[in-house]
Order: sequence, then C-alpha cells, then structure tokens
Amino acid sequence: MYKPEISRGVPGFSGIRTFMHLPHVKDDLENVDFAVIGVPFDTGVSYAIGTRFGPSAIREMSQRIRGINPALDRLNIFDYLSGVDYGDLTVHPGYIEYSYEAIEEQLAPIFRHNVIPILLGGDHSISLPHLRAAAKKYGPISLVHFDSHSDTGRSLDPRKKYSHGTMFSIAVDEGIVDPYSSIQIGMRGTSITKNPYQPARDMGFELLTTDDVKAMEISKLTQLIKARVGDRPVFLTFDVDFLDPVFAPGTGTPEVGGFTTYEAYQMIRGISGINMIGFDIVETLPDRDPAHITALNAANITFQVLSIIAQNKKAKLQNPLEISSM
Amino acid sequence: MYKPEISRGVPGFSGIRTFMHLPHVKDDLENVDFAVIGVPFDTGVSYAIGTRFGPSAIREMSQRIRGINPALDRLNIFDYLSGVDYGDLTVHPGYIEYSYEAIEEQLAPIFRHNVIPILLGGDHSISLPHLRAAAKKYGPISLVHFDSHSDTGRSLDPRKKYSHGTMFSIAVDEGIVDPYSSIQIGMRGTSITKNPYQPARDMGFELLTTDDVKAMEISKLTQLIKARVGDRPVFLTFDVDFLDPVFAPGTGTPEVGGFTTYEAYQMIRGISGINMIGFDIVETLPDRDPAHITALNAANITFQVLSIIAQNKKAKLQNPLEISSM
Amino acid sequence: MYKPEISRGVPGFSGIRTFMHLPHVKDDLENVDFAVIGVPFDTGVSYAIGTRFGPSAIREMSQRIRGINPALDRLNIFDYLSGVDYGDLTVHPGYIEYSYEAIEEQLAPIFRHNVIPILLGGDHSISLPHLRAAAKKYGPISLVHFDSHSDTGRSLDPRKKYSHGTMFSIAVDEGIVDPYSSIQIGMRGTSITKNPYQPARDMGFELLTTDDVKAMEISKLTQLIKARVGDRPVFLTFDVDFLDPVFAPGTGTPEVGGFTTYEAYQMIRGISGINMIGFDIVETLPDRDPAHITALNAANITFQVLSIIAQNKKAKLQNPLEISSM
Amino acid sequence: MYKPEISRGVPGFSGIRTFMHLPHVKDDLENVDFAVIGVPFDTGVSYAIGTRFGPSAIREMSQRIRGINPALDRLNIFDYLSGVDYGDLTVHPGYIEYSYEAIEEQLAPIFRHNVIPILLGGDHSISLPHLRAAAKKYGPISLVHFDSHSDTGRSLDPRKKYSHGTMFSIAVDEGIVDPYSSIQIGMRGTSITKNPYQPARDMGFELLTTDDVKAMEISKLTQLIKARVGDRPVFLTFDVDFLDPVFAPGTGTPEVGGFTTYEAYQMIRGISGINMIGFDIVETLPDRDPAHITALNAANITFQVLSIIAQNKKAKLQNPLEISSM
Amino acid sequence: MYKPEISRGVPGFSGIRTFMHLPHVKDDLENVDFAVIGVPFDTGVSYAIGTRFGPSAIREMSQRIRGINPALDRLNIFDYLSGVDYGDLTVHPGYIEYSYEAIEEQLAPIFRHNVIPILLGGDHSISLPHLRAAAKKYGPISLVHFDSHSDTGRSLDPRKKYSHGTMFSIAVDEGIVDPYSSIQIGMRGTSITKNPYQPARDMGFELLTTDDVKAMEISKLTQLIKARVGDRPVFLTFDVDFLDPVFAPGTGTPEVGGFTTYEAYQMIRGISGINMIGFDIVETLPDRDPAHITALNAANITFQVLSIIAQNKKAKLQNPLEISSM
Amino acid sequence: MYKPEISRGVPGFSGIRTFMHLPHVKDDLENVDFAVIGVPFDTGVSYAIGTRFGPSAIREMSQRIRGINPALDRLNIFDYLSGVDYGDLTVHPGYIEYSYEAIEEQLAPIFRHNVIPILLGGDHSISLPHLRAAAKKYGPISLVHFDSHSDTGRSLDPRKKYSHGTMFSIAVDEGIVDPYSSIQIGMRGTSITKNPYQPARDMGFELLTTDDVKAMEISKLTQLIKARVGDRPVFLTFDVDFLDPVFAPGTGTPEVGGFTTYEAYQMIRGISGINMIGFDIVETLPDRDPAHITALNAANITFQVLSIIAQNKKAKLQNPLEISSM
Repeated sequence: MYKPEISRGVPGFSGIRTFMHLPHVKDDLENVDFAVIGVPFDTGVSYAIGTRFGPSAIREMSQRIRGINPALDRLNIFDYLSGVDYGDLTVHPGYIEYSYEAIEEQLAPIFRHNVIPILLGGDHSISLPHLRAAAKKYGPISLVHFDSHSDTGRSLDPRKKYSHGTMFSIAVDEGIVDPYSSIQIGMRGTSITKNPYQPARDMGFELLTTDDVKAMEISKLTQLIKARVGDRPVFLTFDVDFLDPVFAPGTGTPEVGGFTTYEAYQMIRGISGINMIGFDIVETLPDRDPAHITALNAANITFQVLSIIAQNKKAKLQNPLEISSM
Repeated sequence: MYKPEISRGVPGFSGIRTFMHLPHVKDDLENVDFAVIGVPFDTGVSYAIGTRFGPSAIREMSQRIRGINPALDRLNIFDYLSGVDYGDLTVHPGYIEYSYEAIEEQLAPIFRHNVIPILLGGDHSISLPHLRAAAKKYGPISLVHFDSHSDTGRSLDPRKKYSHGTMFSIAVDEGIVDPYSSIQIGMRGTSITKNPYQPARDMGFELLTTDDVKAMEISKLTQLIKARVGDRPVFLTFDVDFLDPVFAPGTGTPEVGGFTTYEAYQMIRGISGINMIGFDIVETLPDRDPAHITALNAANITFQVLSIIAQNKKAKLQNPLEISSM
Repeated sequence: MYKPEISRGVPGFSGIRTFMHLPHVKDDLENVDFAVIGVPFDTGVSYAIGTRFGPSAIREMSQRIRGINPALDRLNIFDYLSGVDYGDLTVHPGYIEYSYEAIEEQLAPIFRHNVIPILLGGDHSISLPHLRAAAKKYGPISLVHFDSHSDTGRSLDPRKKYSHGTMFSIAVDEGIVDPYSSIQIGMRGTSITKNPYQPARDMGFELLTTDDVKAMEISKLTQLIKARVGDRPVFLTFDVDFLDPVFAPGTGTPEVGGFTTYEAYQMIRGISGINMIGFDIVETLPDRDPAHITALNAANITFQVLSIIAQNKKAKLQNPLEISSM
Repeated sequence: MYKPEISRGVPGFSGIRTFMHLPHVKDDLENVDFAVIGVPFDTGVSYAIGTRFGPSAIREMSQRIRGINPALDRLNIFDYLSGVDYGDLTVHPGYIEYSYEAIEEQLAPIFRHNVIPILLGGDHSISLPHLRAAAKKYGPISLVHFDSHSDTGRSLDPRKKYSHGTMFSIAVDEGIVDPYSSIQIGMRGTSITKNPYQPARDMGFELLTTDDVKAMEISKLTQLIKARVGDRPVFLTFDVDFLDPVFAPGTGTPEVGGFTTYEAYQMIRGISGINMIGFDIVETLPDRDPAHITALNAANITFQVLSIIAQNKKAKLQNPLEISSM
Repeated sequence: MYKPEISRGVPGFSGIRTFMHLPHVKDDLENVDFAVIGVPFDTGVSYAIGTRFGPSAIREMSQRIRGINPALDRLNIFDYLSGVDYGDLTVHPGYIEYSYEAIEEQLAPIFRHNVIPILLGGDHSISLPHLRAAAKKYGPISLVHFDSHSDTGRSLDPRKKYSHGTMFSIAVDEGIVDPYSSIQIGMRGTSITKNPYQPARDMGFELLTTDDVKAMEISKLTQLIKARVGDRPVFLTFDVDFLDPVFAPGTGTPEVGGFTTYEAYQMIRGISGINMIGFDIVETLPDRDPAHITALNAANITFQVLSIIAQNKKAKLQNPLEISSM
Repeated sequence: MYKPEISRGVPGFSGIRTFMHLPHVKDDLENVDFAVIGVPFDTGVSYAIGTRFGPSAIREMSQRIRGINPALDRLNIFDYLSGVDYGDLTVHPGYIEYSYEAIEEQLAPIFRHNVIPILLGGDHSISLPHLRAAAKKYGPISLVHFDSHSDTGRSLDPRKKYSHGTMFSIAVDEGIVDPYSSIQIGMRGTSITKNPYQPARDMGFELLTTDDVKAMEISKLTQLIKARVGDRPVFLTFDVDFLDPVFAPGTGTPEVGGFTTYEAYQMIRGISGINMIGFDIVETLPDRDPAHITALNAANITFQVLSIIAQNKKAKLQNPLEISSM
C-alpha cells in the first residue's frame, strides 16, 4: 500500500513536490489503485497556452491536502486506496500525433494493471490518447464531461485535425466513446458555428448547457448523470473552464458565467458510485493564475474524485454485489 | 455590412486588437448599426486611477468572442447588425471640461447617423458628454444604470463640479436624463453622507440597492426595469463595480458584496426589448486586474448587450409594429 | 470623541495609512470606544506565511471606507462610537511564547479602559493572548468563531505546543473560553485526523461545518448563534479563510468551497445585539493577494463588525434595559 | 528633535506607515529640519497614471531604512537633523490649477519655517507649485534635475498648458528657476519634436543626455553639477524614470537604457555640499510595480538625499564658514 | 508615405494598438519601406510557452515611441521611411511545418515589393520560413544573430526536426544562410552537449560567447560584425534572451548573466550601415512579464533597428555610391 | 554515480521537481559527492518572510539547467560528481532552537559520508546548525560569505538570541567558525548601530563593503578570498540579497545598490580551487518574486558553485598533490 510519505509533525510545505506527498513510484504497478500522472502537453491549444506547467502547479498546490475527507463521512481515502505519483509522461511539444502515440503507449501498462489513471493536464486534447488506451482494455467508454466547451468540433482543414476542440468527435468516430451513455455538462460561451451543441447531440451525447444546469437542482443533475452511465466503465474528464473564470482564471479559453468550486464538489460527490476507470483534469495554465487559485481548485477537485473512488472501493468491500445497482 | 474580419481557421489570438476583430472604420457611418468606441479618459476618478487603459484591455480580452450567442436561441448578432470598431475618441487627460466638449463633439456624428455607440471607458464621468450628445438627438433619455454607486452626488466645492460621482445629478439638472423613467440598480457601500440614496430618489430616480435586488427574483427586477423605461429611448450604463470585487478587482472604487457575472447576464438578457440608443461600460482599470478577469467580464457583458440589440433588430424585422409593446 | 480625520473634499487616497483615517492615538484610552490594533505576528503559522504585513495591507484597503452604513439604516457609526487607530503591538517574530506575553500585557490597558479591541492579524494564534487579556477582565468568554478550521487541535509534540491550529483547545484548558456557550462556524477541508471536529465538540463547542451552514438559511444560523451566546461577553473571531479562496486568496491555509463576502455580511449583521467585548480578523497574507481582494474584504468585514457595535451602543442609549434580552 | 519612533528590538514591519517611522507631526515646524510630505497628485500625467499612490508605497518600502549610513562615514542623519512625516498635502484630483494653488499654499509655512521639504510624488508636475513656494522665499532657484525627460516642453494648445512635461519651461517663464545655474541630467528616449533638448538649452539650462553622462566618469559629472550651482539655493528633483526601467518599472513614462540605482547613489553622494533647499522624488507608480522595486529604490534614494543634507549640516556645525566654498 | 497616425496633442495611450500607431495597411506594398508584421507562432518552443501573445504585447508597449531618435542625430525615421503595421500572419498553432509553409508564402509579397519585414515573434523558429522567403529573393543571407543560444542544434529524433533550437543548422543545410559571412553573438548558459558551440563553428559561423563579448569593447564588436557581413544582404535576428533575465524576464528560456538594453542599443547603433533586408525580434512571452519590461525593451530595440534602417536610407540618398564601403 | 534522470529528448519541463532532475535519494550516501537539500525554515527572519517556499521555487527554476558548463571549459559536472536531491530537512516552524537541533542532527550523516551539502534555504539563520554539523567533522571552518549584511549582530534581548542577523557572531563564540581565515563580501545598507561592520572586524573577520568591492577588479577580490582561506575547509554561504534588488527582488531584506548575477558568476568562478566543504544559498522568497527571477538566479548560482566543486574534483584526479597550492 502506497500513501503519502509525510509524517505527522512534518510541515506540509516540506519536500519534493509530488501530488499530496505520495511516493514517486514508476516501477511497481501491482500494488497500486490509482496513479497520479502529469501530462505536460499543450500543443493542442487554440488560444492562451502554457498548460505544460499545469502538473507542476497542481502538485505544488496539493501539498496541504491530507487523506481524510470530513465532508464524506470522514473517509480516509488511504484506508481503501493505494496511490502513487507516477511522475510525468514523456510528450513531444510541437508534435501532436507523435505525442498521442507516446501518451497512449505509456498509459497502456497503467490500464493493464487495473490502475486508475488520474491525469493532470496539459490541454484537453490529451483525453484522446487517454481514451484510446482505456478503450483497448474496456471497449467503448462512457464519458462524463464537465466543461464549458463540448469539444466535439471538427476541423475544416484536414491538415490540422487534432486540437483541444475536436477530440471527442474523433473519439466517437473511432468507436472508443459510447455517446449514447455519455453526458456533457456545462457548455456555454460564444460560438462561430450556428448550432454549436447540435453535432454532439447528433452523435448521441446528452449535452446540458450551463443554463440547463443552473435551472435544476444539483441532485437532479447527478441523478441524470448516474442514470445515463449506469454501471458502464466511465471516464470522467474535468476541464477547469467548467468553473467560472474567477474560480479558474488560469486557463486558456475561459468562459464567463460558470460554476463555483462548491457546486463542482456537490456534483462530484453526487455521482459517487459510478464505475470510474479513468480521470483527467485539464487546462490549468499557471502563468495566468497569479493567485494560484486555479491550481488550488484543480488539486482539490482531484481529491474529491479520489474520494468517490475510495467510497466505491469501500462499498465494494462491504457489499461487493451491490455496486452496479447504486 | 461590417462584421469581424477573421476567417474561420485563423486563430483568435491573431491580428490587430480591435473589439471582436471588427474592422477599424472611421469614415463610413452610413452602413453601421453599432460602433465600439474607446474613451480612454480617467480624469474624473476619485480613487484608484488608470481606466485610460480600459479600452485597450477590453479589446484584448474580446478576441475570443465570436458572433453567435448559443444562450439566446443561437442568435448570430451579425445576421442583424453591422458593427465597427471606431477606435478611440481624442480626450485631454487632466482637463475635464475640455474633454467633455471633445467627447460630445466627436459623438455627434455617431448619433446623427443612427449608430448605437458602444463606449468602452474610461471612467464613469464620460457618461455625461455621452448623454449630452444623445439628448441632442433624442431629448431627455431614460437611464438604466447598473452600478454600486448612484453617482448623483454634488460637489460642495464649485471649483470641482465634475467627477465620476456627480454626472447623473448634473444630467438631470441639464434636462438630458428623465429621472422619472430611469432606474439605478445595485447601490451599496459606505458613505460620507447620511442619506446617500435620497438625492437620487428626490430627483425622481427609482433606486434599488444591492440588498433590494438580492431580495427579489431577477425576472422581477427585469420586469421592473422594462416597466420603468417603457418604449422610451434608453441609455444603458454599466459600471463594472456593480459586480462583486472578485468579478471586477480591476476597478477604482470596488464595493464588497456585489453580483456575479452570471447574474449580470440574466439581468441584461431579461431587459431585451428595451429601446437602447446608447451604451457604455466603464471603470475597467487594467493595472489592478492581474488575472485580466475584469476586462474579460467587461468584454463579454458588452457582447451580451450587443446580443439584445440584435434581438431587437431581429424582432423589428419580423414584426415591426410590436416592438413598443414588448 | 475620536473619528476619522479626513475632511469632506479631501481625497480618500490622501494621508498616513491609519484604519479608515482614524487618528493614531496611544495615550488616551479614556475617551475611546474601540481601538483598531495591528498585531503583525505570524510565527504561529503552519503553511504559507507573511501575515505580519496584514495590518498594513488592511489599513491601506480601508482608506475608502466611510462611517455611514446605508445597509444598516444609514447608521453613522461615529454618532455612537469614538474610535482610534492604536498602531501595532510590539511582537517578537520567531518567539511565540514571548510574543504572547507581550501581546497580553499590551492589551491589558485596552480592556481595563473598557475599550473594545479590534485586532488586525497576524495569524490566528494571536487570539490566545487576546483571550487571556479579555478573560482577566470578563472571566470565561463565549466564542463566535468564523473559520474553515476549528483550531482546537493539540500538538503531539510537547516542544511545539503553540500554533495557529491549537489555540482554542488551549483556551478551553485555561478556562478562558466557555465552550458551552461558544460556536464555531464554517469548518471544511481535508484532515490528517479521523475526526477533526470531534475534539471541539467533546470540549463542549457547537461546531457547524460549511455543509451544515450551506444547508440552512442565514437567518437560522444567526438565531442559533445568538441563542448560543445569549448576553454573555462574546469574543468574535474571523479567520479570512472562512471565505472561499476566490474571496480570500491572500491567506496561508485556504480551503476550497467556502462563503462569499455577501454571506459573511449577512451573518455579521444578523448577530447584531450580541455583547461583543473583543474582535479579531486574522490570516490576511498580502504577498499572496495580488489584487488586494483579501485585504479589501477584511477591511470591510471589520467595518460591518464596527457597525453592529455601533448598533448595540445606539440600542443601549435608546433603551438601556433591553440589550440583554435581544 | 524628531527622529524615528521605533525602539531597538521592535520589528521594522510594525506600526503605522510613516516614512522611516518618523513621527507624524503637522503642528510644530519650529523644531524641524526636514519634513517628508506626500503629494498624491497625478492629474498632470501624459501616459500611465496612478502616482497618487506613490507616497503610500514609498512609505511602505521605507520601513527598513534606519538612520545610519555606513557608506558615508557611518553618519547618523538624526545626529544632525530633526525630521517629521508631515503627511500628505490636500490636492484636487482632476483639477490641475486648483491643485497647484493648494500645494503652493500648503508649502508656504514649510519654507517660512526653514524646513527642507522632502516631497514624495505624485507626478512631476508638482515641482511647479513646489518651486513657486520656494521662490517666494529664496528668489530664483537653481535646479538639479535627474530625469530621462527635460520637461521643458510647451503645450501647443492653450487650454492644456500644465502637464508633467512642461513645468520647467513655465518655471523659467515665471522667473522662479534660474536656468543659467541649473542642470538637467539623463535625457533620452524618442521624441515627437525635432530638437527635443534645444528648447531647454535655449532657455539657458545645461542639459546632459544619458549618452553624455555614460561617456563620463561620475566624479566628472558631480563636479560639473557642483560648479554649475555653486552656493546658490538648489532644488533637487529626481524623476524615477532617470533610472533604467528594470530599476523603476513602476512609472508612467519609462525610457529604456538608463541608470542603475548604484550610479544614482554615487551621483547624489558626489554632490554633497550643495545648498539644497528643496527636494522631490516623483513618478513612482505602484500599480505597475509588482515587485515594489521602484518604491524601494525611491525610498532609499530619498534617504541618500537626507544623508547629504545631514552632511551639510554636520559640515556647517564643524566649520560654519566653509560651506560655500565646498 | 505611411507614418504614425497620431496627431500631436492626441495622447499616446489612444487608439487601436498598431506598432507605434502606424496605419494598419495590407493592400498596398508599393509605397512601403518597412512593414511591422506579427507572427504569433510558438509551437516550436522547448520550454515556457506563450509567445503567440508577443506581437500584441510589443504593440501595446510601443505606443509611447515617437519617430525621432535624439540619440542618432535627431533622426526622424519617417523623413526617410514609409512604414505600416501589416497585422499578423496566419499561423497554425500545433502544426509546425504547415505554419512554416504559410509564413513563407505570406512573406513572399513583402520581399517581392522590396519591403523590409520587421517581424515580431513568436518563437525563434519563425526565422526559418522568414529566411526561406528572403533567400528566394536574395540568395544565401548573412546572419547577424543576437541570442544566448546558437540555435544550431539538430534533433536526434527525425520525427521532431523543427524547433526553436534547430532552425539555423537547417537554414545552413538548405543553403539559405551563408555561415561564412554570418555571426552569432552572446551565447551562454548550460548545455546537454559537450561542445555546444562547435557545431555552429564547424558549419562556418563566427560565434562569440557572452564571455567573449563582455571581454571586448562594444566598438570592437561592431567592427567585427560589420567586417563579417560586408555589404551582403543581412538578416538581423534578435532573441530577447540575449538580454539578461532582469531585462527580459518574459521569455521562455532565459539565461542568467546577460546584457543590458543599453548595451544592446550600442551594438545596434554600432552596426548602422549594414545592408539589412530583414529583421525579427523573437521570444517575448507576455505571461511571464508582469512589469511588461520585456515587451517594452523589445519595442524599443525594434525602434533602434528602424533607426539604423533610416540612417542607411538617409546615407543612400545623400551619397548613393558609398553605402557599401561604410 | 547519480546524475540527472532526464533522457535527451525529454522536455525539461517534465517530471517531479527535483533540483536539475537529480534522483531523489535519501538512503544511499555512500556513492554521493553532493546532496542538494532543502531547508524550508524561515522563523529566523526579521522582515519579509516566506523563504520556506524557497527550496521549492529554486527546484522549479532549475529544471532547464543541464550538466555542462560551456563557460568553464565545457566541464560536465557529472563527469566528476555524483549528486542527488536529498529532499527537505524536517524543521519546526515557529521554533528556532528546536529546528536548529533537528537540522544539525539531520546533517550529521551527510558530513559523516563526506558528502558536500548544497543547502537551499530558507532564511540565513540555517547556516548556524549547518556550521555546527560541519565543525563536528572539520573543526573551525573558514567562511566565505557573500551578502549585503554581516549577520554578526547580537541581540540585546536574551530571550531572542537567534535570528538571521546574529548567527555568525554566535558561530564565532562557539568556535565553529575561524574568523581570521574568513571573509565577508558585499555589505551595504542602512544601520541602526553606529559601526555596523566593526563587530565583525573586531572578531577577526575580513569584511569588504559593496563600495570596497565595486572599487576593485573582480580578479583582485578573488585573489583576496583565496589568500584568506588558503587550503582550509571552507563554508561558502550566499545570501541572495548580495545581488542588487532587481536581480533578487524576492528576498526579505533587500538592499539597494548591489551586484549583478554576472558579477557573482565571475566571483564564484574566480575562487575555484578552494576546499569547499559546505554551501548554502539562502533568503529566496518566492511570494515577492513575481517574475521568478530570484529563484532563477539562485538555481544558476548554485550550478556555478557545483561547477567549481567539479573543477576541484577534476584537478584532484589529474594532479592529486597540487590542490592545496592552487
């Protein structure tokens, strides 16, 4: 079992910056439930850039997070989960397809060992190789996607197919995401195309705009999500621009009028019980984050996700047959 | 018809910084519905200063805004409106009255051509010459005023009559604003005078404090506003300090405890149908805006205002007689 | 009667930075109702440090606050209160116990003269000597504590007993706080101990987590608080990390998912009538506050507290017998 | 004798922010040699603005300066000088001429009592009322002017005569500066007029460009200055944009390719012995000074100037007849 | 003749942000001597990224630059040169080769019309398509290269040939740079290869390290440069990391221990007379430039380069046959 | 042999932030020549505080440093040295003496294994336990001390003996520093004591002020230093405030008028050959370092020190008997 390597009494600001002081382990995946993995790739970005420093900034702001979540029945996630900081994947800045191949290849052993990857982006386009690697093991994946953008565009120019705005339509094309059990939440912002959300819906996604979500109770939303994905393998992807820009100024394509971190917490806690097989939190851009608030929020949202993974593990241990009916 | 000069496929971060990539046109007002105009004037400021860089910062943060507003029935504002970036007016920093004359004079052709001016301030005192120019064409104007300050003070010292705190009482004195069909929304903050809102009410304004507004549904507020102004010509003025300081840190006289941008969006969308003949958004102070959030919000609020102007135009085109009864 | 030394017509940005332009008075406590006192001490801090510059930053951001509170019946606090800026206490950075002795000793004359101390921290550990000085006069004090942390931990290491996480358990041990009439509000965040809130509850404190508070009306909360403290002498302590990090980025141990300043205002206004004998606002860390929003919020929350002190005084003057039954 | 009110053992970061912890005294000018006086006026500014916060920022960054200057024979300036922080003058933001009258009037008692004013600007245009007040006592003044701009322009527009670029030509016109015993040092930067330095030279000033100064030894420069002014009453004016922008980023009109602070120190020390009757340091703009380096440098340059005033006093005391022949 | 479109009396902070207020002209290259052209491309970057915002930041910081250079005989560059701001080239972020084709193609008409391109980067890799376009017209070009890196590396990995560290070896390979008449100036910093400067020297470049340059007089250096290039067509390329990081913090690969801006000025002025046919200034990264000093320096260095172009033009007009012997 | 764990072709921005990508090793000191060790302690600080984040910031800014130093004969330090990142020592914030004991104890094994500790502070007071540990092995140490402060003060108050201003007088008292073979370089700044440098000289230190150093050639200085220390064991301590504040804004007690990084480089390279047994670089304060320039400079100065350690090792290997006569 791997857990944070910081003794009680040692100040939180001490030591090499791994996520939550987890041990930096690359050579043992047997005894690991989740691996925090940086993917410092940002070549897929369309506007402000610099998310290659996202993993480092999130690790820095995770140093005060400890394993017990008082808001979730005082759950100690390390009672149920063994976790490591796997370091960063090697990427090739400036070369998208080459990087995708490298990312997919490096994630293969993670999935092979049933480790849940917790990816710290990097730009959102890294979800594509992440999904490719996941689908190799699980087949088509159900997507739960918090974002202000649907990212199901298509490049009109065949020479630039890949970007952080097109990966989910490509994923559907490739059959690695099952849109009919997937849901996109929080879309808003201006558009250059007349029906920006129609392509996603036409592909089969359920898509809720920010206005849709703000008009419903959060418990209603989380019921919708859970009903949508059922007990299928779920890939949870969280773009920090889902949050309002005051909660995530440090991102490349902020959209005014979004959500608070507290709302995001409630949404994540509300979908506890889903069968999450992969997670990424993307688009943290430290150079536009002067008060470090985006990285702080990203680190803590990641911990909330780890908490529901731990809850699932706990539930399985207590009642192994009931997990699929939650 | 003028619209943004950026082809699909050209990155949003490219090019000379005009508002939303609109063409910079000064010599043709015949074919223009709205003109975005910078007014880099801040000599009227009482506390932190530097809004002379507001127009530049707002233009910078407008580069990602595209013409289609999915939240408003996927309206493409450029289906209904021809718009230009007119550049900045010439002002005389350090010289208030001289600048007012210059501003008023330069706005005259705008109004003469029935172009709706979309002013990017600068400090709030620029509303006075703006109103003077408007009233020359329209007579007394109805004011819809979002702000944390009423700006209806009066200088006790005859040598300093003009400032960003006194222009609306002067406008009433000059008969260019009709207070009885005008409304001020969002006042809060501490005061040096015992009854800071009484003068405005005594003049005839309806004035809703922040506490008043927070206690009502937004739809109730927007009904109030629409009822108040009817189909009269409306000047909409938006001081960014209407927003809570976390949404608008970059301003000179922030007042704690204000509104979110999402609330502002709903208020603006809710008053669609008013007969807007002029708009300004003021008090963006880039040097106190390290994460550029104020300029980002100001740019996007401006787009929401353009959207309701487009909606009006669309409604007129579809049903020209009904506009006044909305 | 002491009140701000700034004439009408003098710009708010002028002059030596005392709190709200109050006179800097140290040698007359006879004619003073409240004294704003900086305590630039931060040796008790466990994570990010630098709150020794908190008093200076809060004073800087208080320059625009004027004495009249339109939201509270246009109360002019200086109609009821005489106030001074007492300057800063002498502390010994790096030496906790020595500093506590110094703080307690320097606060003694304040309490002796029935002056209400308004302390600007500094880290939260300064509440301990503050309470020691208060208890010398009043006996056990009732605590109303807004914070994301309970601060009732105990160091496992006897060589480092004191910190900004342990002072309230020590205060209970010393009998200077009466936990049974005290309440802690807003706790959240991750923990290294299994039951982080149980120790406080076991001592006798009422403790409401952020989730508890968000689930109730604010008026319900304030009734709870008032019922809890009754007419006992109350020490109000406000840690700025009670606020969400976007409202208080400039603090050393921010916890995601907190409160807005507007909510804090309503809570403070709602407990008007309590018998407040001391106040501190702590943990403002200017070097992590690039937009000065934390200091701005701290300064204005302090003014709201002064306002309810003034309301109490006004109520006493109008109906001296009724205060205890409010 | 007034000197800093901070005991040994009290941390430098403590207390109300007066310059160097000097007592804030306004009502006794009898026993004062120098008075530090803020002039938070910036209406004369032509480009970036906000120097109204200069006095506050300089005071903040002066807190660590102590009275002994080891580089000048371990001189303790307070062995020879009694000094106070006089606070700020009242100015009228937005109203130049009105402010000039106010500044001049408020400085009159300073000069009347033979106190040397040490002005913290504010924009450079405040030198004009400063000189007017000085000349009332001393007649035409010799100017020693460190700056990247000559500030001897003339507005072509009679309606905007006053700005921070024209005050020294006006001063010559008014006969309050004697250009023939005055010197301007450090001019550089681009220009809109063909012969930007000719007007100053035509008026009678000696003017050394940055290139001129860089080509000579500093000791040569200081000899030139001392020879130029002789034993006449000298007004020393230091615009922080004399320094290279990396040493003074926080200013409104920075000019690339300037001087280091160490060079400035040597120049100031080298002119010790001149008969200085007034000093101002201007154009510190805190909102463009993220690392506070400009204010730090301005505070310390001010201390170097105080040091040479103290040296003069010391020299006079030791050998009262020799001062004029230094 | 095109020159800045700002009248005397109009504040420098007014108007749409073109370089030095030059007219934004794309459709007339006949009457143009130089065209300032943004190339917002940064996909070639190996470390910190974001230079796509370089052109916008440099334009913003160029607003105060006026056409007369007092340091160069009061030369008014617009007496000799007609210049425009051509806007930005269209690039394809994330796609290096595609972008290179696009850049080269878009620069072709510039060279065809004998316009000198003044490129504002963007990362340094843009010099490659710039040189390709230049060489189409002029044949092999002589390079004068100010930088802390030689940029003559070779990727070991054939899939990632292009980056901002390899373009000059590729240019030599392609025969578009003549290394034997080229010079690289200012190399320093640590290295992963044993002989980092040997490859450049082996190719034929003259290469001077920072230590080499600091050990010689600047006039010696400029003689070397002029002798090296003779009267061949010269491409001048200036990487802002040639400057010390305090003069250019806003760049992606800063190297400690570099040059001041004043030194850079002297070097540029010293090579006046060379036959410059193209220029770029690259690697300005605004998101790491909190005081805007890098963009300010880049804008002003660009003006110095324009000044020597104007000097050449002036010299040609005065004595058309002598240019090659300067 | 331990060396950076980053393959060629892997971007420098990848991976867990150890110093220069060195392996994080704590359990093997046998095969190590130097260990980079963070000491995140800042309780000894007298003014601005937060150097506990110094080690993390320096590691972040060291990611681009590679092992070859082209300026020193293309030395690859890892041809001669095996190095690790040991992580951070455990300290007790708020408790000076307790922390000193802990630091000394944790450094004992480092010295025992003949590993050269490369300490990243933290405040300068950590040099005391560092010297205590060193002296246990080597006896009295010769100090080479770059700083703007002598740090040989004595607290007048026996209750606060330890701080970052007193450790070297204590070290002399304890007999662990030999002042007669020690030298302090760079002192400047104002003082509260009449003869701030006399105590150090009286103890036996050679002390050169900034003015002394600026008046001599750097080669002269380095000869002085080498002559002073001879072949005794030397502890090199570098306070970043030795640099001018523009080169090190991020520090707690900056002193105007200091040195450039290039000068510091030359000084360090010039003392190659000394018998260095320990090094620390202290007082980097990231929260006051908005452009990260201080951490960048500290990381690179550390590399220069490692380079001269490698040179010594190389010299020893080539000619083992000559080292003492260099």
